[in-house]
Parts: sequence; C-alpha cells; structure tokens
Amino acid sequence: MSASTPTFTGVIPPVATPMLPDHTIDHASLERLVDHLISAGVSGLFALGSTGETAYLTDDQRVAVLRTIVATSEGRVPVIAGAIELTAARTAELAQKLVAAGADAIVTTAPLYTLNSQAEIAEHFRTVAAAIGVPLWAYDVPVRVHSKLSLELLLQLGSEGVIHGVKDSSGDDVGFRRLLAANEAAGRPLTLLTGHEMVVDAMLLAGADGVVPGLANVEAEGYVRLFAAAGRGDWDAARTEQERINRIFDIVFQPAGLSGDATGVGAFKAAMHARGLIDHATMANTVESLDDAAVQRVRGILAELELLPAAVV
Amino acid sequence: MSASTPTFTGVIPPVATPMLPDHTIDHASLERLVDHLISAGVSGLFALGSTGETAYLTDDQRVAVLRTIVATSEGRVPVIAGAIELTAARTAELAQKLVAAGADAIVTTAPLYTLNSQAEIAEHFRTVAAAIGVPLWAYDVPVRVHSKLSLELLLQLGSEGVIHGVKDSSGDDVGFRRLLAANEAAGRPLTLLTGHEMVVDAMLLAGADGVVPGLANVEAEGYVRLFAAAGRGDWDAARTEQERINRIFDIVFQPAGLSGDATGVGAFKAAMHARGLIDHATMANTVESLDDAAVQRVRGILAELELLPAAVV
Amino acid sequence: MSASTPTFTGVIPPVATPMLPDHTIDHASLERLVDHLISAGVSGLFALGSTGETAYLTDDQRVAVLRTIVATSEGRVPVIAGAIELTAARTAELAQKLVAAGADAIVTTAPLYTLNSQAEIAEHFRTVAAAIGVPLWAYDVPVRVHSKLSLELLLQLGSEGVIHGVKDSSGDDVGFRRLLAANEAAGRPLTLLTGHEMVVDAMLLAGADGVVPGLANVEAEGYVRLFAAAGRGDWDAARTEQERINRIFDIVFQPAGLSGDATGVGAFKAAMHARGLIDHATMANTVESLDDAAVQRVRGILAELELLPAAVV
Amino acid sequence: MSASTPTFTGVIPPVATPMLPDHTIDHASLERLVDHLISAGVSGLFALGSTGETAYLTDDQRVAVLRTIVATSEGRVPVIAGAIELTAARTAELAQKLVAAGADAIVTTAPLYTLNSQAEIAEHFRTVAAAIGVPLWAYDVPVRVHSKLSLELLLQLGSEGVIHGVKDSSGDDVGFRRLLAANEAAGRPLTLLTGHEMVVDAMLLAGADGVVPGLANVEAEGYVRLFAAAGRGDWDAARTEQERINRIFDIVFQPAGLSGDATGVGAFKAAMHARGLIDHATMANTVESLDDAAVQRVRGILAELELLPAAVV
Repeated sequence: MSASTPTFTGVIPPVATPMLPDHTIDHASLERLVDHLISAGVSGLFALGSTGETAYLTDDQRVAVLRTIVATSEGRVPVIAGAIELTAARTAELAQKLVAAGADAIVTTAPLYTLNSQAEIAEHFRTVAAAIGVPLWAYDVPVRVHSKLSLELLLQLGSEGVIHGVKDSSGDDVGFRRLLAANEAAGRPLTLLTGHEMVVDAMLLAGADGVVPGLANVEAEGYVRLFAAAGRGDWDAARTEQERINRIFDIVFQPAGLSGDATGVGAFKAAMHARGLIDHATMANTVESLDDAAVQRVRGILAELELLPAAVV
Repeated sequence: MSASTPTFTGVIPPVATPMLPDHTIDHASLERLVDHLISAGVSGLFALGSTGETAYLTDDQRVAVLRTIVATSEGRVPVIAGAIELTAARTAELAQKLVAAGADAIVTTAPLYTLNSQAEIAEHFRTVAAAIGVPLWAYDVPVRVHSKLSLELLLQLGSEGVIHGVKDSSGDDVGFRRLLAANEAAGRPLTLLTGHEMVVDAMLLAGADGVVPGLANVEAEGYVRLFAAAGRGDWDAARTEQERINRIFDIVFQPAGLSGDATGVGAFKAAMHARGLIDHATMANTVESLDDAAVQRVRGILAELELLPAAVV
Repeated sequence: MSASTPTFTGVIPPVATPMLPDHTIDHASLERLVDHLISAGVSGLFALGSTGETAYLTDDQRVAVLRTIVATSEGRVPVIAGAIELTAARTAELAQKLVAAGADAIVTTAPLYTLNSQAEIAEHFRTVAAAIGVPLWAYDVPVRVHSKLSLELLLQLGSEGVIHGVKDSSGDDVGFRRLLAANEAAGRPLTLLTGHEMVVDAMLLAGADGVVPGLANVEAEGYVRLFAAAGRGDWDAARTEQERINRIFDIVFQPAGLSGDATGVGAFKAAMHARGLIDHATMANTVESLDDAAVQRVRGILAELELLPAAVV
Repeated sequence: MSASTPTFTGVIPPVATPMLPDHTIDHASLERLVDHLISAGVSGLFALGSTGETAYLTDDQRVAVLRTIVATSEGRVPVIAGAIELTAARTAELAQKLVAAGADAIVTTAPLYTLNSQAEIAEHFRTVAAAIGVPLWAYDVPVRVHSKLSLELLLQLGSEGVIHGVKDSSGDDVGFRRLLAANEAAGRPLTLLTGHEMVVDAMLLAGADGVVPGLANVEAEGYVRLFAAAGRGDWDAARTEQERINRIFDIVFQPAGLSGDATGVGAFKAAMHARGLIDHATMANTVESLDDAAVQRVRGILAELELLPAAVV
C-alpha cells in the first residue's frame, strides 16, 4: 500500500479461507479467489473475518492466510485484517503479527468471554490502537461477541482517532441509522460499513460508505454494480440488483439442521466450489459439512440464476 | 503428582492472579497465595480460570502463572489448568503448553465467538482431548461462553472417556441436579463440581463431588469445613458454615456501577489485599478498579466477620 | 366501513391515548388528535397499539377509546384495532368487543406468557380469525412478546387467508427483506407494514406497503410526504424527509433512567402536549412521567425544527 | 377462610385444570383432584397458575375453576389464586373477581408485554394490593414474564406490607439464596416458596418455607414426606425422597418436538390420566397433545415406579 491512510469504502468482501480435504489452508485456491475478487472490481479485502473462519485458525495459519492474500493482491486493493482474540493484550500481540504480514489496517471486536463495561471496552480499543501502527476498525457483531458497541462508544473512539471505521453486523438497522446521522453531525470521523448483504441498497440509501458481504465470495460483480448504481443515485437499479443478489443468498437457507457456522460459510463454500472458484468446499476443523442434498439445492439455485460455468452445467 | 490419574474432588479454588501495579504478574504474592490455600486444606488448585483473569493474560503470562503455581504446590495437591481459547486447534496448542508447564489436567469450554451445534461442540472436546496426554474437563459457563453444554453432550463425552469431569457454573440448578442423577445412573463416568460458592451446601446435598469457589481466595477454611461437614452428613453444620461464608460473599455486592469482571474479581482482590494475602489489589489491564468507598465497604464486611489481621484492624 | 375489505397501506399511525391528570381517558384530546391525523393525510388509523398504551387499559377503556376514534374518523379512513391479550380464547373475546365498537380490522400478536411452538402460534391466529368477521393482521414485536413470528408461519397464514397483513416491529431488517421477497413470490397474500419510524425510506425502497409510525402522533405530515416521494420513486427526497424526521425522533433519547414505555410514549406525549395536540402529557397508570429537564430537552428539539406553535414559542 | 391471615408454607401444589375433550373445564375431575391433593396432605392450593393453564382460560372460566376448587376444599386448606394479566388495572379487576369467588390470597407477576422499570413494577404491585382485601404474593417467573423481580424490589414490597410472600420460579438459585438471607436479616417479612420441584430438598436446606410443585398433581405424597423429613432435619431422607420424585419428573422429558407448555403440563396430564386422577388428558385449546408414543413412555416410567393403579397395570 501507499504511505497514505488506506480507505475502505465500496465493496470489501470478507475473504473466505479455502481448505484442502485435510483442513489445512488451500493457498492455491485462495490466490485464485483473491484474483477473482479483485478482477470483479472490489475496492478492498477483509482478511480473517468470520466468513474467513478465522476463529478456527491458529495464529500461524492466520498469518499464512494473510500473507497469501497480501501477496496476491500486490497492492491493487488495500487489505484489512481481523484480529479476533479474547482481550486487548492478546489482540495487540496478534495484530502486530498481522501488520508485519502486510495488513494495511486491523479490525477487532469487543473482548470475548469477559464481562466488561462500555468504559472497559473503550480502553480495550485504545490499548490495541496504541500497539499497532496502522488504522484500527471496530467490528460490531453481537451475535458472536454477545455485547453491543454503543453509538456513544463508537463516536467517542472515532473522535479520539482510536478507530477509523466500523463494520456493522449488529442487525440493528435503527441503531445503524442513528450512527450514520450522529457520525455525519460529528464531521464524519468514522467510515461506516454494513455487513448485511441482503439490505445493502437500503443501507446505502441511508448513507453507508460500503459493504462487507460474505456472499461476494460467491458472486462479487452484483455488489459492485449495486454500489455503482447507488453512487449515481439510481436507486431502482440498486434495488433490482439487490433483489437478484438476494435470490443467490437463498443458498444459505438450504442446509437443514446445521449450526450457524456450518450453514452460512458452508453454503458459500459449496457455491464457490460449484462455480469453480475454489477446489474444495471443505470447512474448518470441527465444523460440519453440508450433505449432498443441500449441496444439490445450492447448485439448483445457482443454475437457475445462470451462475454455474458451462462445463459444470 | 503421581503417575495415577489426579482426582479433583473437595475444595479446588480457582486461583486468583495477583498483579503488580504495572499489571504484570506478581509471582511473589502468587506463591504466598498458593501456600496459603494449601495450608488451609484445599484438595486441588484450578489455575487460569475466570477468577484468575486468564482471559486477559497472554500465552506467555499464562504459562508463567502456571509454572509458579505448580512449583509452589510441589505436588502437594493436583493442579488443573484452564485453556480458554476460541476453538479446538487453538485450545489444543495452548493446552500442550500448559501440560508442558506442569498441569495435571486441563479444563476448557465450548468454542467462543463461533456458532456451533452440540455435535460440533462434542467434536471440539474430542479434538482437544486427543491432543493432550492428561485428563480433560469441561467448563460450563454460559454467561461467558453464551452456549450451554447439554446433559446429553456431557454424559456422552464422559462415557467416551473424552472428559473426566465438569465444572458447572451454569446457574441452572435443575439442570445440574439432572446431570448428577444421570451421571449416577451411568456409573459415574464424570466428577461433578459446582462453581457457585453461595449454594455449596445444597449442591453437596444433591450429590456434587466438590466445589470451585472463587471466594476461597479470600477465605478457604470455611469451604474446607463445609465440605467436611457434608462428608459426615452433618447438614446443619454445613448450612451454618455456608451462611457464614455467604456473609463474606456480600463483598461482591459492594462495588457500584462496575462491570461483572471488575466487581467480582475486584472484590476478591480488594479483600485478599486487606487480609494481607497479596501485595496489591491491581486488576488485569483494561479492567476498572474498585474505588476507595467500595474498598472500605469490603473491609467493613471483613472486619465485622473478624477476617482482618490484628495489625490491619 | 364500506362492505369491501379495508386496505391498510401508506401511513397508518398507532394513535396515542391522551389521558386526564387522573389517568382516565381524555376523549376530547383524542378527538382532536384523530382529526389532526386525518387532516395531515394519513391513510388509516391503528387504534390500541403499544403506542396507544393499550396494555395498561381495561377492556372497558379499550372499547371507549376505540369508539371515540371510530366516531371521530367518520369513515374517512379505516381503523384497525389491536387486541392484545394472553391467548386465543381471550383475544377472540376482546376482538369481538372491538369489532362491535367499529373496528374495520383486528391486529394481534402471538400469545403472551405461554411457551408455544410455531404450530401452536399458527393455531392461535386461526382461532382468532375464525371468531371475528373482519380481517386479522399479525403484529410481530419480539421485544414485547418474546417470540418471533417466522417467515414460514406468516406466509402460511397469509396463503390460508387467516391473516391479511403484518405489522413488523421486529427490528430484523434482513428477516423483513426476506418476507417482502417471499410474499412477492407467493403472489402478495400479505400487506406488509414496518413499525420502525427511523428507516421508513429504506423499508419502502425494499418494498414495504406502508408504515405505522408512533412518531406520527407528533408530526404526521413528514411521513405523508415521505410516502408520496417513495411512491413517485424520488428516493433522494424520501431520504431527506426521513433525515428530517429522524431529527424529531431524537426526542425519545432525551429522557434518562426511565423505562422503555416511559421513554418512548412519554417523549411522544410530551411533544404532542408541547405542540398543543393534546391537553396533558399524562401517562397510563404505573408508568413514570418525564421530569421537567427531559421535557425541556424535548421542547428544545421541537423548537429547533420549528415544530412549536407560535404562541407556545 | 378464617378471619386470620392464611399462611402458605409446606406443599402447595399449583392445581392442574382438567378439561373435557372439547377443551371446556372438567369440573368433576377437578373436584376429584382437589380432594385427592388434600387427602395426600398438602397444606394449601395454588389455583390458576401456569400449571393450571390459566393463561388459556377466559375470565369466566377462571372464576368457574376457582369456585370449584374453593367449594371442594371446604376450607380444609387455604387457596391462593393466580391473577395473570397484562398490567395493574387489569390485574386488579381480575383479582377482585377471584376474591369474590373465594380466593384467600392472590398471586401475580410483573406486568406482561410492557417495558417497565423496577420502580414501575413496584407501583404495579402496590396498585394491585390496594385494590384487594386479601394478601398479595409475587410470582417470579422470568421465563414467562421476561423480567426478573429484584431482591431489592421484593424486600421493599415485603417491608411495606404490599406483598406477603414470593413464589420463586426464576431458576436462579444463587439469587434465591440471597433472598432467603436478606429476608431473614429483615425479620422475615416474606414467606418464600420455591417452584422448582426437582431441588426442593436443597431449597429447604437453604431455608425455603415451602414448595409449589406442578409434579404434585401426579403424586403429592412424596413432597409431603420430603417436607416432613426436612422439618425434622433428616436431610438424607429428604434427599432420598427427592431423588425418587425426580425419577417421576422424568416424564416431562418424554415428549419430543413439542412446546414448553405442551411438554410440561402435557406430561403431567398424561400421567394424571394414567393414574386415574382425571378423566381426560386434554390440553387447553391451541396447545398440542402428546402423541401415543410419548404417552407410553410416560406410562412406562410410572409403571416402573409402581405408580399405576393395579387395574391399569
């Protein structure tokens, strides 16, 4: 990256982590995936997020994954890396490794496992930010972290320069709308991204700066078109594209009886494999795989939307 | 310890981690604390649990804390160490370091941050157990992990020999009672400990094998007497001792407006410091400290119960 | 109402229930409020909803409130009435009274207090629908009911003709988006309204048929303009209006330390009183009132937005 | 009742509501059940609780059920009646009907559906107490009411004389233990009953005054023996009886795939029917019934414990 602060707006997919059948990293598929995403027009890459199954990776694996993404990207787009750890000291240690491996920015959550106040969570972000030489972002994902980053906390950290932006996966659209307005009123200290791939048109209308769609691993072009349509104020085109995308998103409702992690990322990987984007749909160790019937339903949706390669169909 | 499988029954305190004013480990106080606990008659030590603020420690700090506990214990009592990490591969890595540092057994939770099924959680425990050469225990603490280990899961893992016991901090006394009965019916594959220090008499009456009381860092003798009374069937004495202990436990209700971690462990450390058991009441980094008024209320309770040293009073 | 099925699209405010200082119904203010809302251009009225504090009213009071609303409306707009009760038999009894009092349609929630399956909740709606001669609507408000109406349940009931529409106050924008798409694919058996007043532009872009904004009690004209702008595809105008409205909505963040009911409806009533729309800001019995400082902050926001009458300013 | 204040200690079953196949009240079975319970030695009756499916009954049905219970009891034991309604005004209306029908005391919960502070909940109880001429009790059942009655609230209301006692179904044994201690320290303004039928021995050891066990509808004698054993300090006998009772309680784990209401009360009614205590196992309208396989499993448990009548076996 250049010496200037990287900007993360537009479409910034959370890059999936392809795996070999023995659950080790499939670096060849990862390189292909990164190239494919950049060719599709994404404006940045989010490495080591929930979609990247980072929680299941050892630190060595995390560093290796990031190195491949950074090396393949070759500076074409900036790379922000998730440092998902329990608490500040541990997050800072990990973040330093990720910066050394080429991350242009770091994103982290509130502490895990602990029982903290918003004041302690603020101190957590300050401690991490002070330990790294690149911009820090906040990741708000209460379904996994089990605490919500408050509007006041985020604005405070933004005004202090502790965090540069927020990836919002809170599912709280009213709260996000309030954050957008408060950020605007405060002079836009924060860049605000939504993680909810099914409502991007609506969130862009409301003022979001970009989107981090896991589904973009399956098809990124639609999100690039959607973001462009919104940029030129063509909201009907944005909505039409969103509705087409949402038909793809139906793949995540095909598995039955599996866990949240097995279902979402599992459907993405099954679809990526069906489209030839990765060599195996293997999940991280201890996560169950989709059964054949679910894979066939996923493929059926892709076929209907003409998203399978000719040879495959 | 001897070559035989360590048993963890009776009173097994989760050892607090004393810290110097700069938030680094206070090994001298830790040695004194371990000696004190063993002298008080505890039957084992639980290193690196929630009370030990293990979530806030780096891996190097965790290993250092455990080494001090093991070295000070000198095999007088067995040591079980918490390996609190996100997922199986990471937990196994950490657990191996802890075993190398002298842990006689390992205790871990369900995965953190992830969204897993009970089948995936079972696989998580199997993966960790297969990676270590010492007994594995399950730690059920939904308030922190945000998933509950089901009775069926625990019994299955017990019958497979994957786990040797459970530390129950679920707050679900009906569920724990059912687990006690089901374990009995299955031939007692599991050793069952309660983590709820205020209801130990009742849990022992119900059949628990032991207790892991954070409050024992403040005063362990009462729990030792309580367990002995229960062992000889003197339930009135057990209850009387429990009620005295619960008056001590009132210290955790003295802080106001602090987080769960700052309140509970904060009150323990303030009381330990007041009793002269550790040199500083310093909390782990990013956790707030009790204010002076709260510390005075804690000391007031200790004074009333004649738990302050003469010189201090 | 006419013999034809009433349609509820556009802006359908949940009518607040003005009260006298002794907490009895202030029918004179209610008449004035209803007239004001209809003059402002709303397309229907939602009587006896959460904003109407219906939970705090006896059945006699509920009937009296509804009679006043219906009588004042004089058929200018259709009236849908909330029948909020514990279970089907009780809801049906109440709904029959409300239909007799002039309700054109009834809206109800899943059962309260009970622990039911989705199949039982479906039966609940079928039982209520069979007992009344007017259209039934479903009200999805998990923050109060503590269960979520599933997409499958709503579509099934819609296709059976059991329910005619849904008022969505679930706060789950992704779920609502999926419901919109599934309803479209099923031939639109349901009319879909959002209850979230801060994101109406986004929900209309996504395809919602209308909105039930509590804030319209304070100012309905903005929502009428917003809905019209969306109808002609002028999304920038819709967003601009929404952002102005959201500045009004800041009134609900002015009270401090009060309950959810005291805060939201309390701020609405304080603002309505300040604007001269009702004679007293009195809340239902057992709900706390805003203190003077909060009332002043509410008035300050109204003044800044030029929403106070000249005489008042 | 006599002119003196009724006391509710010991075993006070929440009386089930037998129904005819058309879901109307089966008064003949109800009379038989009440007689049976009193003969078994219970010290009071809790009419119209959750086990009594009161949430599914209309007010007329509630009054009718209570009349039958009171008439059958003939003053042999006191009767406390649940007034389960949304808010204070509605609860007071209902409670007055129940007092007129013979209730010796009323028990109610925090408001339903609403979003209230503890201060508003206190006012709720004060309003209800002021409207009735008999003692009021508080029912703490967060799994249904979705708010928890705090220790401070309960003690305050007890010291004011607003409430006479608490039925605790919170599942929070630590909180209940603290309440027992605080009540003792305050001079015992409250009578404290546990609703958790599987841990009665432990709760009595901790100081509970009695128990409200739904399972006593199936077999009350065991609870009577358990309470007597605890009373004479024979805790081993109490525990042995509890463990036998818990084997009966396994009936509630036999249904599969049903709702909470269908499962718990459904298993009780299936067992009561199998034992000949009631004529039909019919559930309240909209609640699903146990399938034949589940009924057979329930009967199998009863048979093993020799709880089926000779003629039935």
